[in-house]
Amino acid sequence: MQVFHTIPEMRNFVRQARAGGRSVGLVPTMGYLHEGHLELMRQAGKHCDVVVVSIFVNPVQFGPNEDFASYPRDLERDVRMSEKAGVDAIFNPSIQEMYPAGFCTQVEVGRITEKLCGLSRPGHFRGVATVVTKLFNIVKPDRAFFGQKDAQQALVIERMAADLDLDLEVVTLPTVREVDGLAMSSRNRYLEPEERRAALILYKSLQQARELYRAGERDASRLRRLVAAMIATEPLAGIDYVEIYSYPELEEVAEIQGPVLLALAVKIGRARLIDNIILE
Amino acid sequence: MQVFHTIPEMRNFVRQARAGGRSVGLVPTMGYLHEGHLELMRQAGKHCDVVVVSIFVNPVQFGPNEDFASYPRDLERDVRMSEKAGVDAIFNPSIQEMYPAGFCTQVEVGRITEKLCGLSRPGHFRGVATVVTKLFNIVKPDRAFFGQKDAQQALVIERMAADLDLDLEVVTLPTVREVDGLAMSSRNRYLEPEERRAALILYKSLQQARELYRAGERDASRLRRLVAAMIATEPLAGIDYVEIYSYPELEEVAEIQGPVLLALAVKIGRARLIDNIILE
Repeated sequence: MQVFHTIPEMRNFVRQARAGGRSVGLVPTMGYLHEGHLELMRQAGKHCDVVVVSIFVNPVQFGPNEDFASYPRDLERDVRMSEKAGVDAIFNPSIQEMYPAGFCTQVEVGRITEKLCGLSRPGHFRGVATVVTKLFNIVKPDRAFFGQKDAQQALVIERMAADLDLDLEVVTLPTVREVDGLAMSSRNRYLEPEERRAALILYKSLQQARELYRAGERDASRLRRLVAAMIATEPLAGIDYVEIYSYPELEEVAEIQGPVLLALAVKIGRARLIDNIILE
Repeated sequence: MQVFHTIPEMRNFVRQARAGGRSVGLVPTMGYLHEGHLELMRQAGKHCDVVVVSIFVNPVQFGPNEDFASYPRDLERDVRMSEKAGVDAIFNPSIQEMYPAGFCTQVEVGRITEKLCGLSRPGHFRGVATVVTKLFNIVKPDRAFFGQKDAQQALVIERMAADLDLDLEVVTLPTVREVDGLAMSSRNRYLEPEERRAALILYKSLQQARELYRAGERDASRLRRLVAAMIATEPLAGIDYVEIYSYPELEEVAEIQGPVLLALAVKIGRARLIDNIILE
């Protein structure tokens, strides 16, 4: 496995792979890998001849009061884990390599970014769409792999790729969870033991919502209120949002008829955790 | 020569050219071709094996009170002229093909778009950067050709291509002029005979500025004022802007030391005409 820090090196690797007729899969990450990332890599390996993983903590997708500085980083560990997962190359550029002096172009996806994490984190999806456009143009993958845990991000990237005519397939894979149900996230590392126990309330409340849905509940605002009430029973949890939108359009729904996304963002200690399920 | 109206057809043509090892040149246009466009096509033909011309009057780069509806269109004429100029394929998509329902992604270049035509035409360069990103992703050219008449546009596209890591070369070619010096433009068609004569004031004032510069004038605001005063002698001409900025950074200059762009936008009748020279 090779590790590249510059765009020309990365391009050159991919060019050679392509010249040999091999397909390329890309797994964009911010590093500090967990089982969710590894599953994306393994799936990429099943569907593509060559797997590239990008590891880049992208400053422009963090707000001024967010955790850019403290976001966990451990390249050595990431390299070891990626190699075991069968990755062929890691792209680990510096901030300077990605955003040299004079950089001033942004990719902005409208509408579906105006809710959920887009409301709580202004500019976040602009930063995501911009860096992913760059990564797509550098690596030129046939397929790129994202996790359903970041459901809105996956929709933003699908939209961006379609709208800008990027010639690739965006693949979104199911959320990988800890044994007790907590969605895997690099930010789980922020949780103190007591907070880790409290964090289970996200999964539990989603499960409860699924049961209510299965029992016939179709009133979106009642379902939201029940989920919010359940999260509120956990004293360490502070709700950022609990929302239900049509999926994948992310439009308002009163009565649930087609598939909907039930999405949560909850602060527990230093961590802001997100999770979601699709009800259909 | 082939004419394609859909993205899959266009992609397929380029894929075949590439599979045969041929390089691809793209000349993006809004049609109603003139000698300036033809020169771009001929230069593309010199530097690339296959030349693609896009003809698309891009609605999103026109402001609500601008000339989108009346912009001259004549595909048959354009096809004839392109064929003579040695073009291999024309890409002429519908608005629906480029902006299908649900489209909501924009490419925005900052800083250098905050002056000149970016001030007079809010949103114009966002529309340009978005459509050109799309065209670049559809045609995947090795080189794309633009005219220096639209100096700011060329800089915006260079910036966008660099910032988004598009793997292509942006080539900017000198302005092509009528015998009397008027810069070629599809919008010259709007000029009544009397206005056509008046329009020469753009070229004349740029020439005068060049003479003053050669004679040693280095005070940017004095030069601007002299150019503006000369344009004001033409009763049919209404100045939108006369500006001098460092080139290619487009930063303010008081005393001219390095290369500068002297750029004009002037309304004459229904036409808003632009022209520029680089002083160095």
